[in-house]
Amino acid sequence: MPEECKDSDLILVCLKTTANDYMLKTLPKLIGPNSVVMTLQNGLGNEEEISKVISADKIIGGVAFICVNRISAGKIDHSAFGHVKANGFNKNFAPEKLRAVKELFEQSGLDFSIEENLHELKWEKLVWNVPFNGLSASLGGVDTRSILAHQPTHAVAIELMKEVILGAKTQDVILDNKLIDENINKTLKMGPYMTSMSIDRLNKKPLEVEGIIGIPLRKAKDKGIKLPYMENLYAELSYYNASLIK
Amino acid sequence: MPEECKDSDLILVCLKTTANDYMLKTLPKLIGPNSVVMTLQNGLGNEEEISKVISADKIIGGVAFICVNRISAGKIDHSAFGHVKANGFNKNFAPEKLRAVKELFEQSGLDFSIEENLHELKWEKLVWNVPFNGLSASLGGVDTRSILAHQPTHAVAIELMKEVILGAKTQDVILDNKLIDENINKTLKMGPYMTSMSIDRLNKKPLEVEGIIGIPLRKAKDKGIKLPYMENLYAELSYYNASLIK
Repeated sequence: MPEECKDSDLILVCLKTTANDYMLKTLPKLIGPNSVVMTLQNGLGNEEEISKVISADKIIGGVAFICVNRISAGKIDHSAFGHVKANGFNKNFAPEKLRAVKELFEQSGLDFSIEENLHELKWEKLVWNVPFNGLSASLGGVDTRSILAHQPTHAVAIELMKEVILGAKTQDVILDNKLIDENINKTLKMGPYMTSMSIDRLNKKPLEVEGIIGIPLRKAKDKGIKLPYMENLYAELSYYNASLIK
Repeated sequence: MPEECKDSDLILVCLKTTANDYMLKTLPKLIGPNSVVMTLQNGLGNEEEISKVISADKIIGGVAFICVNRISAGKIDHSAFGHVKANGFNKNFAPEKLRAVKELFEQSGLDFSIEENLHELKWEKLVWNVPFNGLSASLGGVDTRSILAHQPTHAVAIELMKEVILGAKTQDVILDNKLIDENINKTLKMGPYMTSMSIDRLNKKPLEVEGIIGIPLRKAKDKGIKLPYMENLYAELSYYNASLIK
């Protein structure tokens, strides 16, 4: 496959971040002089990883707030949402290429918007990902409705959102506190949604712990801010990942 | 059985706190005018529960720091430690009766000491119970060595000990910070010890969440002190207990 795709115009990275080693080995086989790489992976640090194999000004970062599960090979269950928001990883990304990508998505019937601040986009998505992916996995592989139906885990989900907003602030990303209510309400509307981490946990696969929890936690820690709820979640989920290797 | 033991001199409560409803139903059948009741159960709140069925000045509270697992009916594996520390639940407990209990234990070859402050004893034991019972269960049923071998869970164990010491302070119990190192070192010596909560988790039994984590957490909260690591642990373990009932 890699050889056939040599010198692609657009390489869309949809791999889990747990496959980033594989991604870094595979990308160089696909990249040509005109290629741009776009990542829609969860969490922080993926654009930085990709910049090890292609110039930073050829990378698009993005988030897809979408409820989608792969049921089996080639079978996808898309239950809610789906808007993609993106921007170049740095200011030197050619705007006409970004517009071309937007058109490509829109021609396929998908919502796509170019947002001003990629950094903010990534942190904003963590407001959902940290509590719901994190808790759904640490509780053993449960759905989002179950987290919100039990008062103590519901309360911890809110504390985790507050910590993400605090962590973002250490990186000069100012997120609105109303995101907390918005995310809770949005999640209540999803019904009993199984997050990707929850499904991975049930399938005894490695969890995307570093990008979603570890990197944000360390970024805040480097600025002298302690995030106890996230630290706890990180401890548990990284313990689980480590136990898979043994 | 209850009828045969009617009017016992000493009733020793060794039930798990998850059986406290059963305990409250059974105790009245055993209690006579000369009875005293001694509890060696984990956590806070048991003496208060027992005082619903017998006068508070007939209750002894105690802690047994002991590594012991029931392998099967009548078969006990005692792997380390075993000293029992106790005192009357209130100041009116007859000192001669306390001395008689001490002699009874010592005649059986067991270490038993009468300590000044029962309140302090109970909190001091939580410094071990909260992190090691709590984490061993939230990690899915693991041993104490595994918790300490993974740096992030080791760090969380220490944070939990700090929170217990902080919680104790809200109840005017001043615990020495050196308890943290002492408990870590003691636990390292235990080797791969399976805590009672860990075993209960593996056997899909209810966990002693309220006495060990819930009550201390709420006592601190009532004094305006937030304990995030314990709150997180409480959320997870109470979620597990609730999921057993469904």
